[in-house]
Amino acid sequence: MKSSALTLSIIAAMNLSLSAGELRDMAAKAGLKPIPQDEATLMKMVDNPKNPVTAKKVELGKKLYFDPRLSKSGLISCNTCHNLATGGVDGVGPATGHMWRQNPHHLNSPTVYNAVFASKQFWDGRSPDLEDQAQGPMQAHPEMAATPEHVAAVINSIPEYVQEFRAAFDKPDMKPTLKDAADAIGAYERTLVTPSRYDDYLNGDEKAMTPEEKEGMKIFIQKGCASCHNGVALGGTMQPFPVAGKYKYANVGDFKGDKNGMVKTPTLRNILETRPYFHNGAVWNIEEAIKIMGETQLGTKISDEEAKKIKAFFGALTGKKPKVEYPMLPASTDKTPKPDLN
Amino acid sequence: MKSSALTLSIIAAMNLSLSAGELRDMAAKAGLKPIPQDEATLMKMVDNPKNPVTAKKVELGKKLYFDPRLSKSGLISCNTCHNLATGGVDGVGPATGHMWRQNPHHLNSPTVYNAVFASKQFWDGRSPDLEDQAQGPMQAHPEMAATPEHVAAVINSIPEYVQEFRAAFDKPDMKPTLKDAADAIGAYERTLVTPSRYDDYLNGDEKAMTPEEKEGMKIFIQKGCASCHNGVALGGTMQPFPVAGKYKYANVGDFKGDKNGMVKTPTLRNILETRPYFHNGAVWNIEEAIKIMGETQLGTKISDEEAKKIKAFFGALTGKKPKVEYPMLPASTDKTPKPDLN
Repeated sequence: MKSSALTLSIIAAMNLSLSAGELRDMAAKAGLKPIPQDEATLMKMVDNPKNPVTAKKVELGKKLYFDPRLSKSGLISCNTCHNLATGGVDGVGPATGHMWRQNPHHLNSPTVYNAVFASKQFWDGRSPDLEDQAQGPMQAHPEMAATPEHVAAVINSIPEYVQEFRAAFDKPDMKPTLKDAADAIGAYERTLVTPSRYDDYLNGDEKAMTPEEKEGMKIFIQKGCASCHNGVALGGTMQPFPVAGKYKYANVGDFKGDKNGMVKTPTLRNILETRPYFHNGAVWNIEEAIKIMGETQLGTKISDEEAKKIKAFFGALTGKKPKVEYPMLPASTDKTPKPDLN
Repeated sequence: MKSSALTLSIIAAMNLSLSAGELRDMAAKAGLKPIPQDEATLMKMVDNPKNPVTAKKVELGKKLYFDPRLSKSGLISCNTCHNLATGGVDGVGPATGHMWRQNPHHLNSPTVYNAVFASKQFWDGRSPDLEDQAQGPMQAHPEMAATPEHVAAVINSIPEYVQEFRAAFDKPDMKPTLKDAADAIGAYERTLVTPSRYDDYLNGDEKAMTPEEKEGMKIFIQKGCASCHNGVALGGTMQPFPVAGKYKYANVGDFKGDKNGMVKTPTLRNILETRPYFHNGAVWNIEEAIKIMGETQLGTKISDEEAKKIKAFFGALTGKKPKVEYPMLPASTDKTPKPDLN
C-alpha cells in the first residue's frame, strides 16, 4: 500500500510536471508573455526614449501623482481614481471627480498598475502612451477639472517643485507646464509594474502556481480568452466589442468605443483586486464577468466550474506591488492659486 | 581693525547666546513645552492606557486611515481631509466630503499631525480623545457618511482585516465594529508627531533656530500669543473667541463654539503648511492671520515687521514627518458592500 501510494504520487507529479510544461508552450503559442525577471530587460521595456525614466523624474512624478493641488478643487489627485492602495483603481462604478460628477459615459477607472504594458491608453484607445494620457484627467471636467494655467501656476508657485523639475529634466531655466507634469507622472507610472506568481511560472518555476491555477490557465487558453487577453498585460490592445453576442450591460452608459467600435481590453493583472468589472463597471462578481465574456466575445458557454478555475488562475495574476513611500509634498505659498470647489 | 572685528563678533555671539538662554526661560514661563527627545518619554506621553499603542494596532490603524472603503461612497478616507502629504490637512476652506457636501458650519479640517497633544478634539472640543474623535467623520453626513453597520460590514467582509483586528486587539473571536476601527485609527494618529527645530532649541540646542526665528519667538511670547498657543501643541485647549475685538470673519459659517462660546485653539506646529487659517478657513495669509489674532484676541496691534518675524518663528515649527509606507490594502470580496455614490 505504502509503496503503491508513493508510486501514484510520483506518477501524479510527473503528469503535473509534463502538463505544466505543455501549459507553458500553450501560453507561448497564445501570445502570453511574462514580465521579464531581469531588471535591465524590464527597464528597457517600460522606458520611453522620448521621456526617459530616471530616478529624479520618477520621484518627482510620484509627488505629482499624489498631489491634489493639481486639481481645480485641490481635493483630487491621480491617486484618487487610480488608488495605489486598492489595486490601482477607485473601486466604484463610474469614475467620480470634481463636484462629484460622474464620468458622462459611465466609464470605470482602469488600473494604473501595469498600464505601461498596454498598447494604447483610455478605453477608446485615443492616447498612445502614459505621458499623453496623464494630460487628460487633469483637465477633464468630471475629473480634476484643472486648466493648463492652473497646473502651471500651482507648480511654479512652489519653489521646491520648480527646482525638482529643473533637476529632473536637466533644464536650468525651465518653467514647468502641465505637459511637463504629465511627463513626470508618466515616468512614475512606468515603474508601477507588479510581477506575480504567474510570471514566476512562465519564467520557469513549476511550483509557482498551484495545480488548480494551472488548470484554470489551461481552460482560459483553450476557451480562447487569450485571443484578446494576451501579451505581457493580458490585455491592453483594441478589440471589437461585443463580437459574438449581445452585451447585456450595453445600456449602462453610452460608450461606443473608438470610431470603429473598438474598445481597449483591460489587463487581467490584479483583476481580483479591481472590482467592479467591464468598461462601465457594471459587474461586481468575477465569475459572472468571465461567463459573460465567454458568451458575448467568444460565443461559448463557460460553466460555473470552469469560471471558478479561471478565477483561481486569476489569483496567480495578483502581483507584488512596488513599495511606495508616501510623499511629503512641498508646502503651498502665498502665490499658490486658491482651490476652487465650484 | 581685524582684532576689533573679531572682538565684536565674539560679543555678538555672547549676546545672542545670553538672549537665547533668556528666551528659553521665557518660553518655559509662558507654558511652551517641547516634544520630548527621549523616545520612551514621548511614547508614554502619546499613549492611551485604555487603548494602548502597539505596533500591530498602529499598522492596522494606518491601513484603515487610508481606506476609502470605510466611507459610504468608497471614495473618502480619513486621509482625504487630513492628508499626510500636505501637512495633515486638505488645504481647502470648508471640509468637503460625501457628494461634495461642505461642512455646514464652514469648518476647516484641522491637522492630524500632533493632534494627540490637544486636550480636546473637534473645534468645539466635544470629543475627549482621538479614538472618540475618529468615530465622528466616518459617520458625518458631509464627510464619510457611513453607518456603523457599513463600516463593520466592510471590515468583516475582508478576512485579512478580521485577522489583523484579532491579532492587534488580542481577541481571537472579535467581530470588529466601527468603534474598534476608530480605536485602531486613534492609535495610529497618536504616532503622527513631528519634532522640529523649535523642539531641538527648547531641548538645549542653541543653534537649532536662527536669530530671526528667536526674535520672532520672543515677540510671540511678549505679545501674549502663548497665553492660548502654549503647551506641547502650541494650542489644543479651549479658549473664548473672540476676546478683545470683533472677529472680522465671524460671518463665514455659523459656528458658535461650544455651549460656553469656547473654541479649540489650533496647534501652530506645521502652521506654514496648513493654509487656510482659522476655524472657518477664512484667511490664507499667515501674516494677516497673526495680525487679526493680535487685534481680536489680545487687543493689541502687531506690526507688519513683527508679523514677519513671528512668521519666521513659525518656520521653526515645521516638523519632521514620520515616514509613511503607503499601505497596500487587502482586497474586497464578494461580501464587501458595494459603494454608494448617493
